[in-house]
Amino acid sequence: MKKVKVAVVGYGTIGQRLADGVFRQGDMELVGVADLAPTLAIRALFEKGMPYDLYLVDMEKKGEFDELGIPVKGSLIDLIQKVDVVLDSAPGGIGAKNKEIYDKYNVRAIFQGGEKNSIADVFFHGYANYEAGIDKRYLKLTSCNTTGLIRSVDCLDRKFGIDRVAITIIRRVADPGDYHRGLTNALQIDKAPSHQALDLMTIMPHVEATGILVHTPITHGHIITVVATGKQKITKEMALEAFKSHPRIRVVSTDEGFKGNASLFKYARDLGNPRGDMYEIALWEDSIVETGDSIMYAINIPQEAVTIPETIDGIRACMSMQTTGAEATAKTNEYLGIGKWKTCFKK
Amino acid sequence: MKKVKVAVVGYGTIGQRLADGVFRQGDMELVGVADLAPTLAIRALFEKGMPYDLYLVDMEKKGEFDELGIPVKGSLIDLIQKVDVVLDSAPGGIGAKNKEIYDKYNVRAIFQGGEKNSIADVFFHGYANYEAGIDKRYLKLTSCNTTGLIRSVDCLDRKFGIDRVAITIIRRVADPGDYHRGLTNALQIDKAPSHQALDLMTIMPHVEATGILVHTPITHGHIITVVATGKQKITKEMALEAFKSHPRIRVVSTDEGFKGNASLFKYARDLGNPRGDMYEIALWEDSIVETGDSIMYAINIPQEAVTIPETIDGIRACMSMQTTGAEATAKTNEYLGIGKWKTCFKK
Amino acid sequence: MKKVKVAVVGYGTIGQRLADGVFRQGDMELVGVADLAPTLAIRALFEKGMPYDLYLVDMEKKGEFDELGIPVKGSLIDLIQKVDVVLDSAPGGIGAKNKEIYDKYNVRAIFQGGEKNSIADVFFHGYANYEAGIDKRYLKLTSCNTTGLIRSVDCLDRKFGIDRVAITIIRRVADPGDYHRGLTNALQIDKAPSHQALDLMTIMPHVEATGILVHTPITHGHIITVVATGKQKITKEMALEAFKSHPRIRVVSTDEGFKGNASLFKYARDLGNPRGDMYEIALWEDSIVETGDSIMYAINIPQEAVTIPETIDGIRACMSMQTTGAEATAKTNEYLGIGKWKTCFKK
Amino acid sequence: MKKVKVAVVGYGTIGQRLADGVFRQGDMELVGVADLAPTLAIRALFEKGMPYDLYLVDMEKKGEFDELGIPVKGSLIDLIQKVDVVLDSAPGGIGAKNKEIYDKYNVRAIFQGGEKNSIADVFFHGYANYEAGIDKRYLKLTSCNTTGLIRSVDCLDRKFGIDRVAITIIRRVADPGDYHRGLTNALQIDKAPSHQALDLMTIMPHVEATGILVHTPITHGHIITVVATGKQKITKEMALEAFKSHPRIRVVSTDEGFKGNASLFKYARDLGNPRGDMYEIALWEDSIVETGDSIMYAINIPQEAVTIPETIDGIRACMSMQTTGAEATAKTNEYLGIGKWKTCFKK
Repeated sequence: MKKVKVAVVGYGTIGQRLADGVFRQGDMELVGVADLAPTLAIRALFEKGMPYDLYLVDMEKKGEFDELGIPVKGSLIDLIQKVDVVLDSAPGGIGAKNKEIYDKYNVRAIFQGGEKNSIADVFFHGYANYEAGIDKRYLKLTSCNTTGLIRSVDCLDRKFGIDRVAITIIRRVADPGDYHRGLTNALQIDKAPSHQALDLMTIMPHVEATGILVHTPITHGHIITVVATGKQKITKEMALEAFKSHPRIRVVSTDEGFKGNASLFKYARDLGNPRGDMYEIALWEDSIVETGDSIMYAINIPQEAVTIPETIDGIRACMSMQTTGAEATAKTNEYLGIGKWKTCFKK
Repeated sequence: MKKVKVAVVGYGTIGQRLADGVFRQGDMELVGVADLAPTLAIRALFEKGMPYDLYLVDMEKKGEFDELGIPVKGSLIDLIQKVDVVLDSAPGGIGAKNKEIYDKYNVRAIFQGGEKNSIADVFFHGYANYEAGIDKRYLKLTSCNTTGLIRSVDCLDRKFGIDRVAITIIRRVADPGDYHRGLTNALQIDKAPSHQALDLMTIMPHVEATGILVHTPITHGHIITVVATGKQKITKEMALEAFKSHPRIRVVSTDEGFKGNASLFKYARDLGNPRGDMYEIALWEDSIVETGDSIMYAINIPQEAVTIPETIDGIRACMSMQTTGAEATAKTNEYLGIGKWKTCFKK
Repeated sequence: MKKVKVAVVGYGTIGQRLADGVFRQGDMELVGVADLAPTLAIRALFEKGMPYDLYLVDMEKKGEFDELGIPVKGSLIDLIQKVDVVLDSAPGGIGAKNKEIYDKYNVRAIFQGGEKNSIADVFFHGYANYEAGIDKRYLKLTSCNTTGLIRSVDCLDRKFGIDRVAITIIRRVADPGDYHRGLTNALQIDKAPSHQALDLMTIMPHVEATGILVHTPITHGHIITVVATGKQKITKEMALEAFKSHPRIRVVSTDEGFKGNASLFKYARDLGNPRGDMYEIALWEDSIVETGDSIMYAINIPQEAVTIPETIDGIRACMSMQTTGAEATAKTNEYLGIGKWKTCFKK
Repeated sequence: MKKVKVAVVGYGTIGQRLADGVFRQGDMELVGVADLAPTLAIRALFEKGMPYDLYLVDMEKKGEFDELGIPVKGSLIDLIQKVDVVLDSAPGGIGAKNKEIYDKYNVRAIFQGGEKNSIADVFFHGYANYEAGIDKRYLKLTSCNTTGLIRSVDCLDRKFGIDRVAITIIRRVADPGDYHRGLTNALQIDKAPSHQALDLMTIMPHVEATGILVHTPITHGHIITVVATGKQKITKEMALEAFKSHPRIRVVSTDEGFKGNASLFKYARDLGNPRGDMYEIALWEDSIVETGDSIMYAINIPQEAVTIPETIDGIRACMSMQTTGAEATAKTNEYLGIGKWKTCFKK
């Protein structure tokens, strides 16, 4: 089978990880990445020996790259013409401008959560609505919090049916290395309901969702608490069994040493994962409690990497590579090594 | 009427504020405070000119105070013998040891949340169970989070009846100036259910409560989200009206500029409140959302000062100063200036 | 003697404290404060019962204040016409615009550190160059770090002569309650030399100064380390004696419990100082070390309040109220209660 | 040549990195690692497929490992008997106890900075005193700050001669993932002089050193400012040229995007370095300033990995693998890939 050709436009926090993720897919080819300026990410790419070809959004800036000795393969337009699908991870709002180019050169594109929903034909999640994305021209991925949240809610929904969720998002306010945003010794609350709850309802329209978001001055992983009300009473045992069977959910406990979001980051570093990234959300077994007919639990969202698998699922959908979400997510998981850990720990 | 004589044992974060709060009560007399060592708090007391008399837990340490010129009035035993009731704000666990002295000298005592429930006859909250504390020898106050949480749940419960709450506590991990505890760039999750949910059920046994607590590396104010299920459907308007009528709940909004816990601390400083303290919890009007038959909202808990009013209510109860919680809390509020602000803003 | 009439334009972090400071001066009258919008600071002023009259920079916004019931006394122009001198604490850059009004209405003005040096006739510090400010029309105050730094360097310079300083500024990145700026889990370094070193040389041209500034994600107090080279060898004892004699320098030690900047904030809160502010810089006795012919020490800069005394000194200079810095600073200190603490601790 | 056999005792933050570093040395063999409990680090080792054999300090705990399916190769004693040299990275103070075992089984050992100097024959730094470590039985490495600091001072000293340094250490207070220590919204100052200055003088006795250390609530990289006084006047150009020629010093600038310690951590992650580690210290070109006859500059110390190269140098010394520091450090650098980056950027 011919490999699907992929470009990544915008080589920032998400773009770098998308490139690495596509690179690992046996049935895809990463043709190159595009960016604007010799950022630290581009300098690191260069220091690594240019594992990916670099294209420039604006060829007038080529001189800056030449001066540093960083090789440039061509322009964004050159890159677009070589691929089947573009993963657009440009800063929020730029994607809408880029779309004009994708239109013109007739490539498919998948946008990240920073763009407006209207940019795409389908607001997409690999597990919750894969089929809706098949053969579509433009997809938009859910944001990091929504992606991880939906994994857990969809997991329960498929087994038991979910009517309603009320969430509290304890949001990390910046990524490690961010100097353009930050918060110091303060919690910040957003107007409710949070957009993540609204987004969940767009993807899973049969679920009623609402919630409150509070920003916290940390950099490793959002934590979300979820109160989920099922069509039937869901016990802790039922929920746990469902969560443990999901390849993209790691069930952990404080007794094992996973004391919080920073433990998970440390663990991923110690695993030797590139950049200390983790694709799975974590779910604390000892956070699960029953409340009336509802179930409550807490998950950790590794914001830098969590959307990578679902974005790659999106390539599979829009390129009609697999016909069901089950097949597609299994393929993505296989190439990314997701779920292998399940076989090493007896739980 | 003769004033009730009060001692404060343990002049730390809580003890200083208890002393100041009792000092403002027209029907109480602060006889003195007791502590162990010339801490910064004691040095500040001295620099202020000793508005309160100081007694020593251990007279063998008197030399340290003499050297600094800080006047000592007598020993802890001297102090105990002069008062009707002791507010024990010694570090957690010390209160149990102090209780032997209170037993021996036949004084009443009110312990703070750090002690075990078994230390007291009644686990006490000024609004939720004042009557249970009347004429009791030993009371224990709810902790800061539980005190503020109960204010809001009791407020709804009295108007509409509450069956169940599921809470998420976003806990500040240290107070300003703390160097003996802290967390750096990490969220930390506790095993569920949180003790605050269990404590709420002890005080309000007709309510089912559970919840998850996450520690965050900040110093100003916990934020709690509450999903409360009423005996009847509670709308946002109903909840808001109830909250606005509670003297110890400030209803605020992000549009006014109250963006989070740090805004409230800043506001209290700008009000000229001693130490920048606030006795009221804040409740964000724009956090209130309905979910199924439940109502969800977020409150801010000013951890250093929030238990002061309810502790003073406790003096009123154990000394039988008022016969109902309504009368007692009104008296405490009057002397502490709580609720005056309601008259200045037209809401 | 007729009191000097003062206005404060810009009622933010600095403006509020300038207003409070002027209010306490027996020989000055605070006529009013001006601002733009019903910020939290203005709401707090209202809740306190309007101890100061409020004037509006833009009368078209009066409706917003009327709606909240906040009384407005008049316009900025009305205010300007009633005073001798304006303390301009508008956000950086706005002062330059305001200056046109001060020109037109012929009032003197003192600008804060956020404005360019060229805005004023004299770049001013109460201790280091009071005399240069006498009868000048426009002064500009040194910034918070520079103000505190110069106090300590000028103190040594007057006693022993200083040739050179090399400083490291460990800068707090935001004030408590700030949501418009912040840094999360990161140190940020500025290009050297820091502007504070350059500013010191403008005020004290006989001293060579350079240094490095690093931003840290905290809110209470900058810490500066200083390596100062004297015209003669300065021993630890010599330096200590000089520092102890300065009214605006508090000599503290870690053994007393002053473990860092947060201890000082806590101490000021416990003192009952409004807003938990401190006018004095602190200097750690146990940080002083000798290095070759130089002396090294660390100071704490309480960024919100440290410039208030020197700004009030500025009023005394530009209004020719005192003819020497010694007399002027003594007057300011007396009214602000600075130095009283020296009499209570035997050191 | 026969490979030198190495054990790592204590598989924590440092131990993991020592194991990885030794593993990469062509002339060494990592026989195994020893630890006590199934920590997250051990669990990660297991999930990675046990690239290193695991030995237990206490065989009575083997059941805990069996339960998790984690294979155990033998006891600490078994391990010791198979190796030439032990890298002891047990928690501070435990090394002294372990030394009795090393004595008994006649192996050489290298201790980390947490132990007392008296534990070893030589207090060691690969660049500054390699020769002193040759054929010695016990070495102790300098701590992370001292290791990095000495790199830069030794670099200048070898070229120009250094008489004196005065340092300010802006210390990160915890590592990512640490929950057992932390600081929240506070700077903390230590009594001067800092132990790092004293340690520098032990290693480089001809240099006079002093300094002040301030802890900051962050996790990525200490920053140290150094005021160094040479035997001759050292200009910025002279210093820069020296620093650029040092393989373990990366000269960076804020203009390139290296805004602070967190940029360096991000860059190392983006390079794909395991755990996002960096062996080199960074030195900001635009921090270098001249002051009198001295030079001032700022360096970044990546605390988790910085001592790894010098510890491996220590193996080379105590095992007499190379006879000069120049040869030994070159070998270590080659195997760790240090200095390769110099060839990719034209500077």
